[in-house]
Amino acid sequence: MSTMLSRFPFPDTLDELPEDLRARILAVQEKAGFVPNVFLMLAHRPAEFRAFFDYHDALMERESDTLTKAEKEMIVVATSARNHCLYCVVAHGALVRIYAKDPLLADQVAINHRTAPLSERHRVMLDFALYCAIDVGELTAAWEGRLTEAGFSRDDIWDIGAICAFFGLSNRLVTLTATPPNPEFYLMGRVPRES
Amino acid sequence: MSTMLSRFPFPDTLDELPEDLRARILAVQEKAGFVPNVFLMLAHRPAEFRAFFDYHDALMERESDTLTKAEKEMIVVATSARNHCLYCVVAHGALVRIYAKDPLLADQVAINHRTAPLSERHRVMLDFALYCAIDVGELTAAWEGRLTEAGFSRDDIWDIGAICAFFGLSNRLVTLTATPPNPEFYLMGRVPRES
Amino acid sequence: MSTMLSRFPFPDTLDELPEDLRARILAVQEKAGFVPNVFLMLAHRPAEFRAFFDYHDALMERESDTLTKAEKEMIVVATSARNHCLYCVVAHGALVRIYAKDPLLADQVAINHRTAPLSERHRVMLDFALYCAIDVGELTAAWEGRLTEAGFSRDDIWDIGAICAFFGLSNRLVTLTATPPNPEFYLMGRVPRES
Amino acid sequence: MSTMLSRFPFPDTLDELPEDLRARILAVQEKAGFVPNVFLMLAHRPAEFRAFFDYHDALMERESDTLTKAEKEMIVVATSARNHCLYCVVAHGALVRIYAKDPLLADQVAINHRTAPLSERHRVMLDFALYCAIDVGELTAAWEGRLTEAGFSRDDIWDIGAICAFFGLSNRLVTLTATPPNPEFYLMGRVPRES
Amino acid sequence: MSTMLSRFPFPDTLDELPEDLRARILAVQEKAGFVPNVFLMLAHRPAEFRAFFDYHDALMERESDTLTKAEKEMIVVATSARNHCLYCVVAHGALVRIYAKDPLLADQVAINHRTAPLSERHRVMLDFALYCAIDVGELTAAWEGRLTEAGFSRDDIWDIGAICAFFGLSNRLVTLTATPPNPEFYLMGRVPRES
Amino acid sequence: MSTMLSRFPFPDTLDELPEDLRARILAVQEKAGFVPNVFLMLAHRPAEFRAFFDYHDALMERESDTLTKAEKEMIVVATSARNHCLYCVVAHGALVRIYAKDPLLADQVAINHRTAPLSERHRVMLDFALYCAIDVGELTAAWEGRLTEAGFSRDDIWDIGAICAFFGLSNRLVTLTATPPNPEFYLMGRVPRES
Repeated sequence: MSTMLSRFPFPDTLDELPEDLRARILAVQEKAGFVPNVFLMLAHRPAEFRAFFDYHDALMERESDTLTKAEKEMIVVATSARNHCLYCVVAHGALVRIYAKDPLLADQVAINHRTAPLSERHRVMLDFALYCAIDVGELTAAWEGRLTEAGFSRDDIWDIGAICAFFGLSNRLVTLTATPPNPEFYLMGRVPRES
Repeated sequence: MSTMLSRFPFPDTLDELPEDLRARILAVQEKAGFVPNVFLMLAHRPAEFRAFFDYHDALMERESDTLTKAEKEMIVVATSARNHCLYCVVAHGALVRIYAKDPLLADQVAINHRTAPLSERHRVMLDFALYCAIDVGELTAAWEGRLTEAGFSRDDIWDIGAICAFFGLSNRLVTLTATPPNPEFYLMGRVPRES
Repeated sequence: MSTMLSRFPFPDTLDELPEDLRARILAVQEKAGFVPNVFLMLAHRPAEFRAFFDYHDALMERESDTLTKAEKEMIVVATSARNHCLYCVVAHGALVRIYAKDPLLADQVAINHRTAPLSERHRVMLDFALYCAIDVGELTAAWEGRLTEAGFSRDDIWDIGAICAFFGLSNRLVTLTATPPNPEFYLMGRVPRES
Repeated sequence: MSTMLSRFPFPDTLDELPEDLRARILAVQEKAGFVPNVFLMLAHRPAEFRAFFDYHDALMERESDTLTKAEKEMIVVATSARNHCLYCVVAHGALVRIYAKDPLLADQVAINHRTAPLSERHRVMLDFALYCAIDVGELTAAWEGRLTEAGFSRDDIWDIGAICAFFGLSNRLVTLTATPPNPEFYLMGRVPRES
Repeated sequence: MSTMLSRFPFPDTLDELPEDLRARILAVQEKAGFVPNVFLMLAHRPAEFRAFFDYHDALMERESDTLTKAEKEMIVVATSARNHCLYCVVAHGALVRIYAKDPLLADQVAINHRTAPLSERHRVMLDFALYCAIDVGELTAAWEGRLTEAGFSRDDIWDIGAICAFFGLSNRLVTLTATPPNPEFYLMGRVPRES
Repeated sequence: MSTMLSRFPFPDTLDELPEDLRARILAVQEKAGFVPNVFLMLAHRPAEFRAFFDYHDALMERESDTLTKAEKEMIVVATSARNHCLYCVVAHGALVRIYAKDPLLADQVAINHRTAPLSERHRVMLDFALYCAIDVGELTAAWEGRLTEAGFSRDDIWDIGAICAFFGLSNRLVTLTATPPNPEFYLMGRVPRES
């Protein structure tokens, strides 16, 4: 594995890890073809590793009322860019491109969702997401009306807010540890798959 | 239970909750004498409830290298105040007072740690905590030196950063749901216990 | 008296003070049971002492059109918290609790009036107060309409603005001198008086 | 007098004012050749008028250790410009020009003291003044060293801080009432007096 | 010429300059009676000099749909003040006074257009200008409606935005080089011309 | 050509353009294989078009003392990202990848140069660039020392500052007109050229 992965300890081999962590990492490697660095960054703290990925899956793999997988990833990219977190912008930018089948959307959302060619639904969703992520102290009940009007259910609103909250945590861990995104993420979803 | 606990669903009785959630809530009730509202706020999402409290315990009940329980709670109070999160300031302010055996410290840290009568160790710890919590995008490697000089180990630095990150998540959930602190927290640790 | 009251000179005994200052201090001591530190902080500058407390009394002891004593103190607490002034938050927080007969209100207003259980009147009042205190350069005539609609007279608007202005001055003096709040303030109004 | 002096009541004639206010206003008119609008703006509140000008005189007419009249006015102009207060920038800009016998200094200090051709003493003085005026919550004891090194006594430091604090109050009253500077101020000190 | 014009090279005499630069400088000297320092600041980079003044003239000497010369200069002064650029505030403040035939307007716009006695047209124009100059990332299509309602054509909107953009460039060059305004600018348009 | 290129007029065909504009556009099309949208966005204002591209070429095609083409483009990307300008981040990100022969560098610089794996030279260069671009009012002479120490000549410093200034202008025009980057830019330099 990498020698300069982060400022903090990381495993030299998966063998030294608790069995459940190793299984989880092998499963993602099987699916993605490589081990995303965030798994290695957290591996020296097994209890935190487990809670982090349980939380992640609870939110991101949940069947939401109307929120799609692509929309969830757009929220991650927009808020992570404001937190200046390269890892999350690049890794979840790949997922935006793949889920939305749009090679341009991730960069548009990362740099400025206000000038991006988005639907009103997506504009309200990301306006709210940035409030949750950045200006949480200014949040007022007025948002509920705007979001409901844009078609989001109460459970969707929870999901949007909780995703901002969870990735705010993720952004901070990644920045603290200077964990770089795996090079593979940069290109994923940018070029059409060969058939 | 409360009728206006939050903007989101909460349990009318503990009976409707999964067994492990009920057990966890009864345990905290046993210890504290009441059920902190954050447990009820999260109860309608059992998977998130479990991940949240697992993460909380992994960080806050961990034996850190040099970081004490009182110091961990000071970090929570200082960063939650900057995020304007009443619940966390009040609930964890109670813990600061109790662990530090100082009835004034929580308010001092919440309002302005810069003018508070703190040790240099605590001043550096909270300066760094506010960077992690608020200005994460400005974080540079220069912090490592300041923290090491103040006696913090690399694992302590992880703990400080991770506590800021986790309570940033908590601040956002609590604000989103407008969850009020239980009235009991406000006074805890302010008056000497009768013997 | 205290030995580390502030970074600036303070009286060792009231005997060395001008007669009118001593009288004013003894009167407040008589009423409160102790001498609030801000009186000692200003005592080395008698002319400023007199102007400061004359101004304070002109605003705070004035019979306003509709603004109550509790409301005036809420304004002080909300704006002082944004200026990170521990003395004013703690000392005037005590007055909020006492005048409003509400042991929780001061902390709610200090940390985030937006999520506090306030009336619309109080919400508009504190929104405006924060503009006066923090974003004075952005103030526009549009506020007059919102405040009038919420039931405030023109003289009330002056009072709100002038209280923000005066305590902005107070916050700065207290921070400059690192004047700590008297320990007595922290607990006042939090526990029911015994009958 | 003016018909649109401010959004709040102002006297139609000096005759209706309390004797001491009238005397004070006539004295300034005698000296300046006109009545500065701030005197009229405050006249409907005699107790506040008295405290305001007593405070003003206590600070601005005080014989400071090393702080000159020109330096005091520079502090007023620099901080009032950051508070976007036209009245104080224009009225006290006139005084900067007159006291410093420099027709250009007021505009330089108002727009950007960092690029102005100032001495190191003045640069430190204004850096500190902006901290007191704008970022008071960030103030730390480290300033004391910088200021002492630049030749300021402890009493000078109080004066700088107190002037920032007092004019922060003044800036807010003037903005709230939309009080315009008298036209006479704009040109004062810009053209050499004819002999 | 001046010896301390800027931190960067400037011509000792116009003779050393390319012919077209010298002609341009002599023409402005003929008209203004002196050489504005910005011409000298740019002279060591002839290609940039030409592009800069070509751009300037294309915008500022263009016949706009409804935007007057005075309005264009108001935009320059308001945005340059927010960028803390003394040269542009002073030099273009002179032009505001001259074109608007109003000796007070430039200072009003520089310090706070929100409290200045402006028409609604000018208020909207400067609100928008500050968004373009300072908060460009927050710009949304909603501005188009406000501006059209205030009587601005689509070409006017381009002109306002482009003037903000061009003088943002100018502000940065001038600040980088610490180029001072010529003393002559400070007084221009403040005193009535003798007939 | 595109039908929704920008909110402002753009040419339906190059035939309607002045000869020199058409020649310039055909030249870039020849080289790039497509017409970058910024050329079309500016075409309805020929005088501004000429000045803009003359300025661009004077800075970007200039042989600087030590500043490379790749470094110039890194400055553009870092500052444009802070101004939330998608066009410049995407178009100049392509140039960063190509000139630096590094498919990852552009995203790293756009999201957070502080955590990117950069040399000290590049870190100082981009720290300074963000000051010029965003906090120009805070710029002090102290930067000169840091930049000289990092190996930049006085002319390099001018180039860095002028590039920030020019692309600040560009960012504002592009945002105002909502000009999208050509789709071709997104992928350029990300995949190895086939030989």
